[in-house]
Amino acid sequence: MPAITFKVDSVSGSARAGLVVTPHGAVETPTFMPVGTQGTVKCLTPLQVREVGSGIVLANTYHLMLRPGAEIVANAGGLQKWSGWGGPMLTDSGGYQVFSLSELAEISDEGVRFRSHIDGKALFLSPEEAIKIQNQLGADIIMQLDDCVGYPAERYRVNESIRRTADWARRSIDAHSRKDQALFGIVQGSTYKDLRRESALGLADLDLPGYAIGGVSVGEGSALIREVVGATVELLPEEKPRYLMGVGPPVDVLDAVADGIDMFDCVVPTRNGRNGWAFTFKGLVKVKNSVHAAAEDPIEEDCDCYTCRGFSRSYIRHLFKAGEMLGMTLVSLHNLRFYARLMEKARDAIRAGEYEAYRREVSGAFGK
Amino acid sequence: MPAITFKVDSVSGSARAGLVVTPHGAVETPTFMPVGTQGTVKCLTPLQVREVGSGIVLANTYHLMLRPGAEIVANAGGLQKWSGWGGPMLTDSGGYQVFSLSELAEISDEGVRFRSHIDGKALFLSPEEAIKIQNQLGADIIMQLDDCVGYPAERYRVNESIRRTADWARRSIDAHSRKDQALFGIVQGSTYKDLRRESALGLADLDLPGYAIGGVSVGEGSALIREVVGATVELLPEEKPRYLMGVGPPVDVLDAVADGIDMFDCVVPTRNGRNGWAFTFKGLVKVKNSVHAAAEDPIEEDCDCYTCRGFSRSYIRHLFKAGEMLGMTLVSLHNLRFYARLMEKARDAIRAGEYEAYRREVSGAFGK
Repeated sequence: MPAITFKVDSVSGSARAGLVVTPHGAVETPTFMPVGTQGTVKCLTPLQVREVGSGIVLANTYHLMLRPGAEIVANAGGLQKWSGWGGPMLTDSGGYQVFSLSELAEISDEGVRFRSHIDGKALFLSPEEAIKIQNQLGADIIMQLDDCVGYPAERYRVNESIRRTADWARRSIDAHSRKDQALFGIVQGSTYKDLRRESALGLADLDLPGYAIGGVSVGEGSALIREVVGATVELLPEEKPRYLMGVGPPVDVLDAVADGIDMFDCVVPTRNGRNGWAFTFKGLVKVKNSVHAAAEDPIEEDCDCYTCRGFSRSYIRHLFKAGEMLGMTLVSLHNLRFYARLMEKARDAIRAGEYEAYRREVSGAFGK
Repeated sequence: MPAITFKVDSVSGSARAGLVVTPHGAVETPTFMPVGTQGTVKCLTPLQVREVGSGIVLANTYHLMLRPGAEIVANAGGLQKWSGWGGPMLTDSGGYQVFSLSELAEISDEGVRFRSHIDGKALFLSPEEAIKIQNQLGADIIMQLDDCVGYPAERYRVNESIRRTADWARRSIDAHSRKDQALFGIVQGSTYKDLRRESALGLADLDLPGYAIGGVSVGEGSALIREVVGATVELLPEEKPRYLMGVGPPVDVLDAVADGIDMFDCVVPTRNGRNGWAFTFKGLVKVKNSVHAAAEDPIEEDCDCYTCRGFSRSYIRHLFKAGEMLGMTLVSLHNLRFYARLMEKARDAIRAGEYEAYRREVSGAFGK
């Protein structure tokens, strides 16, 4: 038995709707994963995350390996149980955070030497260690360690990155010891389309249960992300889930769904939520603005979330002005419900064969 | 029809169990009111507050009159609706906060001159204005403005305070314009038992629908609070609810229930919760302590709250160490459930005629 199964049931253009079944539950695709960096989706309880319709949650290996440490999580029965979430989870490899958060990261074929951003302790992460830690954390889907370059990147450096990432994929397969976790490979290649293709083809040969496009959303902008996805996606096995890492705003997500991506993750809904920026199908609502001071309407009139069913813009604005955490909770909750509805409507549109019309309608609302 | 009705159904010693019925719902007494200073119980949604078993929530007039202003709340249909709580609410008069938070408070028979702690704006609060604002906010139970003295206080000053508070009670009755709100009077008198008695007798003559003992929990300590309550409570009409303002830790609450108090409010459960200090029937648990790093047991084994049903001490400790808000939410939620259970068990014990045994048992767990 493979750790996960994946089946596409409908297509509309290149967009596809399907189902991923994991040991902790099934997830309809395309799906958006809320980010629970430190084993919690910020400002929300797992019950609230469940109630907005999220199917699978992402956690960051880098953060959890530093604090509290993978052993504590393993001894507590794994991340799904320990975090109180209970449903499907995915952990990244820690590679991206090593570069973005830690000090003095030094990469070699062996792995990455870095210092903890918490206490400065010298640490080393190899592809094998990243798998070992993820085996301990116990998520349903785990990611290989990759060599993630910034943007812009020199061609020679990107070449090195895809060669190393491919080598690390093979080493990850060898190190992986749990049959109930699906290991995904990660395509690198920065904005060089030929290198993206080379990376994708090499990984596809390894017959992994899923593939991610990594090294995007690092400052290159929506247009280049779309070019990278367009150049890569058709080389990834059709029968495996495709995951675009770290993307993104609603329009970028819908664009990538149009190209055949099945899975997404991004901090945008929760980070914006904590800042009082709410997503709606009519565009962005900044609830802190004084125009909402006496507004009795909810953030979004026809939204079915707890926030929109019970609270006015006036009250939510007051919470932000008064520095009350409930404001961050309510807008984060609404934003995750918005993303869940965005994906629900995308699946419905794909199944109705009307995806492109749906994508254009939502893009229009966001002025794109 | 009076705004509220109150009926005692059982007594055990001087402790009593009963029911307050308000326009927004019924509340079993003795009851503990979570504090929602700015119209929100910190870190929790109204649904979470409801689910822990809270019956009535307190909000602070001082905070809400400054921000967002009583008119916005009035136009939104009142505090119960605007805050999403929906159930019974009580607002204090603002007097206590004027003294504890604002700058340059100057009191006279007319009222209090002070400066907003938010923007320094010069403001004036009279007994009539405090009622007018509370009429706008629309809580089910409202409080007269009182002249609250600190501890220790000179006798001449306390004498002035009870005389002024009695005068303000009469002016509040005249100013009060809503038949669906119950106005409570407030007994002052600091730690002078004869002045407490004089204040209580004077207020009792006004035949208000409820009475509070104010000016306690201002630094005098549990023993003196108990003396003040003991000297005052029997002079307050038996058929009206009695409310001990700003109290307190579990043992102080149970002591006051023993003396015949029906209502309490305090920030202790939520403030301690945000600090990672959890109340249990075996005493205080400080979840941030390293002893809990790998502890798989919940905060309290036989607690039925969302926190204890789904999360280990290990995970909650991690949330605090990682600076994640969910930690504050989970312990605040547990603490409010603890207080709700504390009062449920108190009511059961009163109805079984075994209140004193219950009070002693809980006091023992807290080392008292």
